[in-house]
Amino acid sequence: MPTPKASVIIPAAGAGKRFAEAAASLHPGAVQPPSKAFALLAGRPVLVHTLERFAAVQAVVEIVVAVAADKVDWARQAFGDCLKGAKRLVVVAGGRDRTESVAHALAATDGGTELVAIHDAVRPLIRPAIIEEALRVAIEHGAAVVGRLVDHTIKAVGPDRRVLRTVPRDALWLAQTPQVFRREIIVHAYQRRENLVGYVTDDAQLVEAMGQAVVMVPGDTVNIKITAPEDLRACEALLAAGWPFET
Amino acid sequence: MPTPKASVIIPAAGAGKRFAEAAASLHPGAVQPPSKAFALLAGRPVLVHTLERFAAVQAVVEIVVAVAADKVDWARQAFGDCLKGAKRLVVVAGGRDRTESVAHALAATDGGTELVAIHDAVRPLIRPAIIEEALRVAIEHGAAVVGRLVDHTIKAVGPDRRVLRTVPRDALWLAQTPQVFRREIIVHAYQRRENLVGYVTDDAQLVEAMGQAVVMVPGDTVNIKITAPEDLRACEALLAAGWPFET
Repeated sequence: MPTPKASVIIPAAGAGKRFAEAAASLHPGAVQPPSKAFALLAGRPVLVHTLERFAAVQAVVEIVVAVAADKVDWARQAFGDCLKGAKRLVVVAGGRDRTESVAHALAATDGGTELVAIHDAVRPLIRPAIIEEALRVAIEHGAAVVGRLVDHTIKAVGPDRRVLRTVPRDALWLAQTPQVFRREIIVHAYQRRENLVGYVTDDAQLVEAMGQAVVMVPGDTVNIKITAPEDLRACEALLAAGWPFET
Repeated sequence: MPTPKASVIIPAAGAGKRFAEAAASLHPGAVQPPSKAFALLAGRPVLVHTLERFAAVQAVVEIVVAVAADKVDWARQAFGDCLKGAKRLVVVAGGRDRTESVAHALAATDGGTELVAIHDAVRPLIRPAIIEEALRVAIEHGAAVVGRLVDHTIKAVGPDRRVLRTVPRDALWLAQTPQVFRREIIVHAYQRRENLVGYVTDDAQLVEAMGQAVVMVPGDTVNIKITAPEDLRACEALLAAGWPFET
């Protein structure tokens, strides 16, 4: 059987306003990047680290990045030659929210790939071995989500930060990315997305709503999502220390 | 009004078997510490880092550490002069589980302090400013738990790692430590603990069961709980990079 091929979608169109404000307060006067995906991590944009992680996976044949409409030309120039070898990099304009950005990127993927992986631009520490495991599970079950079993106590909290109750945590997982799907499943889920009421926080939710099986894949604690300047420094420290610590 | 004084309880009696096995597989032949609380972090035991964080808080007058019964003499010798100045360090024998270890330590505290803070030995990156805020909230409301608003999607997961549903995450918090209580509240909660059925994963749960208010205090993402050798290396990297990054 030939190895299934994968398209990767990386939404990076978020304005990252809160991040920019916090970064500006740390370094007033410095030129700020347009989004946290383009902030410098160990001297290179966060997105470049993320692209390299996926580029290291053989099954990946293309990466489609969605950026803000006014950043498309800039991003093509800045990242156009990031991927070495036969892998294709495509830059598209995102939409007004994350879901729409993913939809735009999905439309730009090569219809010939069997799998579609969706990954947060701002999770640059993802290990290629975890990506590969997620691809494998998605082939087998149709949909795979990288995450971690919850190992904290979880509290349901009301107004004024008062604890309402402790939530039983057996069998709760924190979802991270990548989230990987067989192409026909995610395409169908996105076509139906307008029917889903309520706030959608991840792509797998659209697939769950179809009654389709979604299987968790254990990832790393330090698959950090950079949402604050402090997270960027934590990632930098981990990279400097030799993360992924493979011995 | 005089500043309220606080006793700190640090349970460190866990055998940490899984941690020791993983560490041994990374460095076969090396002498392994008896528990992850005594593993070396930047050249000093994790517990010493943790003790120093609390020692930096003026309201703290004593720290009671519970260790395995056969480690009491050793721990007194090893850590006895860790605390400078007027703060008291007490080492007691722990019990057969975490709750019993905390109960032993509670019995050994100075009854004259108004507050009792309970903290995981293996969270060495706690910032003194967060400890101080938790003490303040506990004075005001009776019980305070340091934690983080959940910013991940949470999945309820069944056997075979299949997702059952996405859990609405508004108003969910991850509880960390320290958890701080007015003395009479935690003493009463521990006296009543045999009445509580089901598995208790944190101290605040005993207090919630009494109908007592518990208030969350926002902490740091990187208040890492060291449960695997990889976490130890992440802490080491953060310390080397100058955590707590106070600029």
